[in-house]
Amino acid sequence: MSATWGTNIELSIFGESHGKAIGVVIGNLPAGIALDMEAIKKDMGRRAPGKNKMSTARKESDEVEIISGVIDNITTGAPLTGLIYNSDQHSKDYSYLKELMRPGHSDYSAYEKYHGFNDVRGGGHFSGRLTAPIVFAGSIAKQILKQMGIQVGAHIKSIKDIEDDSFGIDVNEEILNDLLLQEYPTINKEKYTLMKKTIEQARINQNSVGGMIECAIINVPAGIGNPFFDSIESHLSPLLFSIPAVKSVSFGIGEEITNLLGSEANDSYYIDNGVVKAKTNHNGGILGGISNGMPITFKVGIKPTPSISLKQETINVKTKQNAILEVKGRHDPCIVPRAIVVVEAMAALGILDILGYERLK
Amino acid sequence: MSATWGTNIELSIFGESHGKAIGVVIGNLPAGIALDMEAIKKDMGRRAPGKNKMSTARKESDEVEIISGVIDNITTGAPLTGLIYNSDQHSKDYSYLKELMRPGHSDYSAYEKYHGFNDVRGGGHFSGRLTAPIVFAGSIAKQILKQMGIQVGAHIKSIKDIEDDSFGIDVNEEILNDLLLQEYPTINKEKYTLMKKTIEQARINQNSVGGMIECAIINVPAGIGNPFFDSIESHLSPLLFSIPAVKSVSFGIGEEITNLLGSEANDSYYIDNGVVKAKTNHNGGILGGISNGMPITFKVGIKPTPSISLKQETINVKTKQNAILEVKGRHDPCIVPRAIVVVEAMAALGILDILGYERLK
Amino acid sequence: MSATWGTNIELSIFGESHGKAIGVVIGNLPAGIALDMEAIKKDMGRRAPGKNKMSTARKESDEVEIISGVIDNITTGAPLTGLIYNSDQHSKDYSYLKELMRPGHSDYSAYEKYHGFNDVRGGGHFSGRLTAPIVFAGSIAKQILKQMGIQVGAHIKSIKDIEDDSFGIDVNEEILNDLLLQEYPTINKEKYTLMKKTIEQARINQNSVGGMIECAIINVPAGIGNPFFDSIESHLSPLLFSIPAVKSVSFGIGEEITNLLGSEANDSYYIDNGVVKAKTNHNGGILGGISNGMPITFKVGIKPTPSISLKQETINVKTKQNAILEVKGRHDPCIVPRAIVVVEAMAALGILDILGYERLK
Amino acid sequence: MSATWGTNIELSIFGESHGKAIGVVIGNLPAGIALDMEAIKKDMGRRAPGKNKMSTARKESDEVEIISGVIDNITTGAPLTGLIYNSDQHSKDYSYLKELMRPGHSDYSAYEKYHGFNDVRGGGHFSGRLTAPIVFAGSIAKQILKQMGIQVGAHIKSIKDIEDDSFGIDVNEEILNDLLLQEYPTINKEKYTLMKKTIEQARINQNSVGGMIECAIINVPAGIGNPFFDSIESHLSPLLFSIPAVKSVSFGIGEEITNLLGSEANDSYYIDNGVVKAKTNHNGGILGGISNGMPITFKVGIKPTPSISLKQETINVKTKQNAILEVKGRHDPCIVPRAIVVVEAMAALGILDILGYERLK
Repeated sequence: MSATWGTNIELSIFGESHGKAIGVVIGNLPAGIALDMEAIKKDMGRRAPGKNKMSTARKESDEVEIISGVIDNITTGAPLTGLIYNSDQHSKDYSYLKELMRPGHSDYSAYEKYHGFNDVRGGGHFSGRLTAPIVFAGSIAKQILKQMGIQVGAHIKSIKDIEDDSFGIDVNEEILNDLLLQEYPTINKEKYTLMKKTIEQARINQNSVGGMIECAIINVPAGIGNPFFDSIESHLSPLLFSIPAVKSVSFGIGEEITNLLGSEANDSYYIDNGVVKAKTNHNGGILGGISNGMPITFKVGIKPTPSISLKQETINVKTKQNAILEVKGRHDPCIVPRAIVVVEAMAALGILDILGYERLK
Repeated sequence: MSATWGTNIELSIFGESHGKAIGVVIGNLPAGIALDMEAIKKDMGRRAPGKNKMSTARKESDEVEIISGVIDNITTGAPLTGLIYNSDQHSKDYSYLKELMRPGHSDYSAYEKYHGFNDVRGGGHFSGRLTAPIVFAGSIAKQILKQMGIQVGAHIKSIKDIEDDSFGIDVNEEILNDLLLQEYPTINKEKYTLMKKTIEQARINQNSVGGMIECAIINVPAGIGNPFFDSIESHLSPLLFSIPAVKSVSFGIGEEITNLLGSEANDSYYIDNGVVKAKTNHNGGILGGISNGMPITFKVGIKPTPSISLKQETINVKTKQNAILEVKGRHDPCIVPRAIVVVEAMAALGILDILGYERLK
Repeated sequence: MSATWGTNIELSIFGESHGKAIGVVIGNLPAGIALDMEAIKKDMGRRAPGKNKMSTARKESDEVEIISGVIDNITTGAPLTGLIYNSDQHSKDYSYLKELMRPGHSDYSAYEKYHGFNDVRGGGHFSGRLTAPIVFAGSIAKQILKQMGIQVGAHIKSIKDIEDDSFGIDVNEEILNDLLLQEYPTINKEKYTLMKKTIEQARINQNSVGGMIECAIINVPAGIGNPFFDSIESHLSPLLFSIPAVKSVSFGIGEEITNLLGSEANDSYYIDNGVVKAKTNHNGGILGGISNGMPITFKVGIKPTPSISLKQETINVKTKQNAILEVKGRHDPCIVPRAIVVVEAMAALGILDILGYERLK
Repeated sequence: MSATWGTNIELSIFGESHGKAIGVVIGNLPAGIALDMEAIKKDMGRRAPGKNKMSTARKESDEVEIISGVIDNITTGAPLTGLIYNSDQHSKDYSYLKELMRPGHSDYSAYEKYHGFNDVRGGGHFSGRLTAPIVFAGSIAKQILKQMGIQVGAHIKSIKDIEDDSFGIDVNEEILNDLLLQEYPTINKEKYTLMKKTIEQARINQNSVGGMIECAIINVPAGIGNPFFDSIESHLSPLLFSIPAVKSVSFGIGEEITNLLGSEANDSYYIDNGVVKAKTNHNGGILGGISNGMPITFKVGIKPTPSISLKQETINVKTKQNAILEVKGRHDPCIVPRAIVVVEAMAALGILDILGYERLK
């Protein structure tokens, strides 16, 4: 089971939902980076469960203990290891998961791969909880990018059929900063109430909903990336698809571009006070795998949380018979709001891996 | 500029649209594979231009000369190199491309990356022509997968707003074989005429259209893949985004899943004569990054061909001024039909790279 | 600073000599491996300091706490993380190392690389202590190899000018097992006293000595490895050179082969009861980067411990002036005996990474 | 069979001794590098066979045709492909190599790996001829390093028991340039005659000899490299062991360091006009895997050419019986002189891969 990624910044994530701790080793960081621990804490909080009645019942502080690679909050250049201890690790009886395969979860595919040896408690290593160390690493990546003038931000593009506006061509730091102040970050703030209602309704129905997140990376200079296998899209997409529940990734206006004519889809260039700009950004700032100086934008589609309290049909792998599954207790009826900071983290890690540290002063 | 990909099967692609030759080095192939040269030729023909009045005017036979790694059509285990010579390499004057940046193409982003040193003739290394060696490698991958019982096939899911049906849960070899017999492979054959008309209209208007391709990989056993960075999605998506003009990748029913409730999105398992099956396949055969035994299905969105004959606004990078671009001559008004075999190739290469050769008898 | 290695088995090592803990994340392990915790403990003990008056004064139990990837001593298939806490982490004043560069150590090269931000206490991340997690990972690798019938063992080939015999062509399990019973493993046991005396003399003189280790990997089937960049030698050598103080790596009889004639150096094959064997093994079981079925043998040269109590000339990087360094206290006058298990670990990890798990029943 | 290497500069080598062509794809080269084709030709000539009666009878011009990645001798940034056609590809009958395994060659290990499907003519992909594309790539790497002020050079350290002096601590451009003017480059030119005589004697006796090459990389700034798996030694050694016939690699004074006391082995630093220097260079310019500003020096041991005309005992893999092999014709009695430029190439490629292009103006 590979848990390693990256070249200019390397990640190894590890841990299980109900093991002693989860964490990440971050390699290839430059020495001398002063970490903003407050910013990291804030990002961890954006992902953490238990914030309100709509998310999962699990209460975890998600505090990161850094056990290597940092002295006095400054990176030493050695691998940085962050540990997050699991506080409620022995809380429940998960033995039914050894037999009953939850639909929509990795239970059955993992059972086949690991021949039943995998840790099933709370999803084990497949738990969405593993995104906590990714948010930690991403928070550091965002701080480094910030020193190069690059910023990453995201908003809820949709919850089920409730759609927010899209980032415009003029997405800027102010807009991204404003999103950070919202509980459910949207561009059109009127959508907030409708989205919240949709999620609340799902919760009441013991069901769940999904949605889409749109992300922007601004101030990436033109000329970054590569054609083919090392394109920006080829570099970001595996990270985004690593987020549990993500089923689609698209750049710029995404699938909509297939409905345009070529004359509409092509983003015309013009000179604005000596600076090259494009009149539209249907291609999301990437052409031929390489940045063209426009904001890099993309969307990810997140499926409804597979954990629901409704009865479901499934199989028992021990008895090899059909079975009914009913998992009572509180589930997160929609993970989209908590996933925003995870998407940001992946975007930041991916773009930093492409950029390297040359531009770091 | 990285042109290398893969572990169990390695690719290095090279060449420019108007250089002497394009090609690919394929590493890590097992020795003793008898190549079906006829099948390779057929696949090359499916991608080749100049087949009918609707595709580009360029006539290339796209014959592959294998210069290493094969004796008497049997792999030796050494790196296999395939060369495709460019027959009409000096045909046109491309000097205007040194100054005028075609919208929707990589011209400007490449100009910034390579400081003007890149080969601009016919798009140089960024040309869609570089997909020819990929089809060659993919054709070999498909032959190896076939020996493991695994088959890859694809159809046009849409041309602009004309939509074909989707693969059903029962997609099988027969259905995939039938698609190979069609010029514009669709599941609902009535859509063929409408699609053709849409493309023809774009051609007449000196414009272009895009569309979507749906691909299925059948008979992949459950338990293949990994969580997180090495998930099946994370392995396939960078390959698919390496195809020029691909702007979106989604698995299963893709973005539509964000409109379902959890109870609808979860694919319920049941036992069918001792075999584990799912009643639906919204998740495209992948859960937690690992196959669950159902067909692996995904869709890619392809933007309208950026090359159009209509006048377009752009910039001149030498004079740093706004300019008008008009590229006369014949362009491919829609590359979707020719891209089908490229998508198949990437799917085959990606899944073979995950599987390795253990299952090869 | 990259701390990641491997494909079929992946390692990420982390930690500093005087940080909270050191450790390793081991990825891509198969599920269902029952770990022999006693064997791991024994291997950790072979490397641990403080065993006798001849090694360093530091007392560390080097107990590994496994915090992920294992349930009831059986691997789950998820990344396995082992932590080793540093017990005497605040014991000494190391501030002088911020200024005075110890000759023979990484102090100055690291100072230039990390601009002085690196952790200097006890050598920080460069400490030989980081070989402890490697021994842990190697011990697991040896257990997996054992299930394939493959065994790794090593002996002291020399301490300064005192030379042991070399492994013969008939090195076998019995010989390797016998080495494990010795404090200073040698083939010619009479050399033990001389070696011990040489080390003791160095200690008395506040000086240090080095030596060579010879390692054998037996029962590797013929046909494993690759030509060129993925040769067995190319796979093992970077691991061996990762061991602090290793300055040379050679296969078979090593440099001596340059003194032979071709007719002597070539290992002649013959058939022995239907089995292909060679009459000599000057090439150490590897030809063209691939195993030929003979024992794989290699030697590494380890320089004298750079830490000595004698006064040494050096520089002060703060004052930019020449300086005298004197580091009192106990130092390890020879690390060769403790390095044996580290060499074994690297050999096991390297060969397992080449083999993968196909042969594992 | 993997033939790919590198990150900042990527290589894929391909071809067989008696196929149509051998070659290399070089990825990740920066755009705008003006290639000195004359220097490349000179380097190719240094490796080429048939120069005098002492080397192999094969006459190959070893001219490289660049078929991608270069326009008007300037790199475009796209993958650069160099082809070298095999001129005498059908000259001999090699069918006996399908049965009789030449001792000291890869014949038997390759037979086991490829189950007899590998190309055996002239050694196929295992031929020393595959070092020609490596010399080509290395020649380009040397040109790029030169623009950063870094130079690579090597000399014959020994032929059998005839030893040359070693590079001193003051090895400089002048010394390295002088070596390029010699047919058999030595520091102590009086050794030339003895070496030549030793090789000539081996030729007369239908036998062969080996030897050692010492290489220096000068002007590498302090602070380059990494601890552990990405140390300079770990980066260079797999490349050096990729050279056919190399059996040992050592840095600095190599194995001799194991005979010194710590007080002798440690290279003391001092300040020379504000510049940090070391009084000795036993460690070859590398400490903790990182450069310390001293010349990087290393030695490789090359075994006697396994091809000899004397009768040899071996096996027939078809009949499974013992056999006598006698290969008449001219063989290269010593490849050490021709290997010098190959060692330089590997050193240049390895160090450039570590450095990247940041320092390139």
